[in-house]
Amino acid sequence: MEQRISLITLGVDDLPRARAFYAALGWHGQEAEETVFFQAGGMALVLWSRRRLADDSGVPGTGEGFDGVTLAQNVRSAAEVDEIVEQARAAGATVTRPPATTFYGGYAGVFLDPDGHAWEIAVNPGFTLADDGTLTLPEF
Amino acid sequence: MEQRISLITLGVDDLPRARAFYAALGWHGQEAEETVFFQAGGMALVLWSRRRLADDSGVPGTGEGFDGVTLAQNVRSAAEVDEIVEQARAAGATVTRPPATTFYGGYAGVFLDPDGHAWEIAVNPGFTLADDGTLTLPEF
Repeated sequence: MEQRISLITLGVDDLPRARAFYAALGWHGQEAEETVFFQAGGMALVLWSRRRLADDSGVPGTGEGFDGVTLAQNVRSAAEVDEIVEQARAAGATVTRPPATTFYGGYAGVFLDPDGHAWEIAVNPGFTLADDGTLTLPEF
Repeated sequence: MEQRISLITLGVDDLPRARAFYAALGWHGQEAEETVFFQAGGMALVLWSRRRLADDSGVPGTGEGFDGVTLAQNVRSAAEVDEIVEQARAAGATVTRPPATTFYGGYAGVFLDPDGHAWEIAVNPGFTLADDGTLTLPEF
């Protein structure tokens, strides 16, 4: 697994309120399917419904066991997703969404580290991944 | 406020266990004062006691109201810290640690966004901040 993070997703209860807050700080994002994406250096910060983020991560959305935040690493092949998720499982992670094809034409799986922090490992053909691992969002 | 993230800190209950987990995934970190720092592209992933992270962020460590994760943006001056924290407060953030000098010779404040996600805005003279905002950890 390369030592980098592609996306941080913050679960939010009110997307327009959250988007307005970051806009007030000077952040410019793009919205697609009730999700807001901000390019942030060589990665992206994402705002998404906390409930959907929990569901998508295969975890309960309330109480202990979900941060309301997920990390993601985008990789280059489905085989790499499988390999990293298996490596994590062997190291003590809980796999909450086994690797599978995704609705956006990619392939991804999710695990929780030993402290319950969620990581998605994903191939997303819509996001550009440079050789150095930096991620660039498309124009939506 | 520039549109970038300098550090993500994951609160952990057992630092050696957490460090061993990331080591098993191939991540190489440096430990200083019971904190593990991983260079991750132009930013850093940090592992730190969940309890201390909550205390340091000015939030209760258990139950609702703390993710167990914090984001940080490192900036270039104390005036910039003050300005961003005030801008966030005006936009609806809760300031949980007013800007002040820090034990490591820096200057920082913490706020929670409207969904309770914690951001530290900090000047840290020990971490190199390039013109493009990428952060490079020192050799500890």
